[in-house]
Amino acid sequence: MSETLFERIISRQIPADIVFENEELLAFRDINPQAPVHVLVIPKRVVARIGEAQSGDQELLGSLLLAAAQIARQLGLAESGYRLVINNGPDGGETVPHLHCHILGGRSLGWPPG
Amino acid sequence: MSETLFERIISRQIPADIVFENEELLAFRDINPQAPVHVLVIPKRVVARIGEAQSGDQELLGSLLLAAAQIARQLGLAESGYRLVINNGPDGGETVPHLHCHILGGRSLGWPPG
Repeated sequence: MSETLFERIISRQIPADIVFENEELLAFRDINPQAPVHVLVIPKRVVARIGEAQSGDQELLGSLLLAAAQIARQLGLAESGYRLVINNGPDGGETVPHLHCHILGGRSLGWPPG
Repeated sequence: MSETLFERIISRQIPADIVFENEELLAFRDINPQAPVHVLVIPKRVVARIGEAQSGDQELLGSLLLAAAQIARQLGLAESGYRLVINNGPDGGETVPHLHCHILGGRSLGWPPG
């Protein structure tokens, strides 16, 4: 299986505007931002998509959401607010088969969410 | 602090179209659906919003995402795809101060997500 864009970002083969990193997660700015703040949070370990996560991924998924909220705070969105989005499969608009959580903020996000 | 709508749904004071329940989570159809399938997954224990989740909530947050994927499968969205959305604060469009994860599917969801 060939490496995805995100694996190449994790291994620093491709540059990215990284805003957060710890042992299990990496977060960087989306190269095609849909809001003034638009960051992706990904696990370093490959989980293709949320629909393929296993019960053994529970802790990692909890970390992902806690980190997303922490990064949103770090980026000044705690008071103004933000939206977290995880896309799965064609109707969801999934683009890279490596689980990622979008953080969008810095503007009022409309409804429906796409 | 007065009970939110979701606490009244959990305690069955208000009816809802429940699609999933276990000890820690409840899922029911959104009363103002934005897609053919639009379900909310909530923890029974009150966490106001993702920005107020604590490290002790990590397991619960992992369960929430795993359950969302399981419910999406149960509702026939595994192949066609879906989007998970968590709103936090004003710009996110948060409406009820009780953490909830939207599952939307059954149509192609656009980009940006709001």
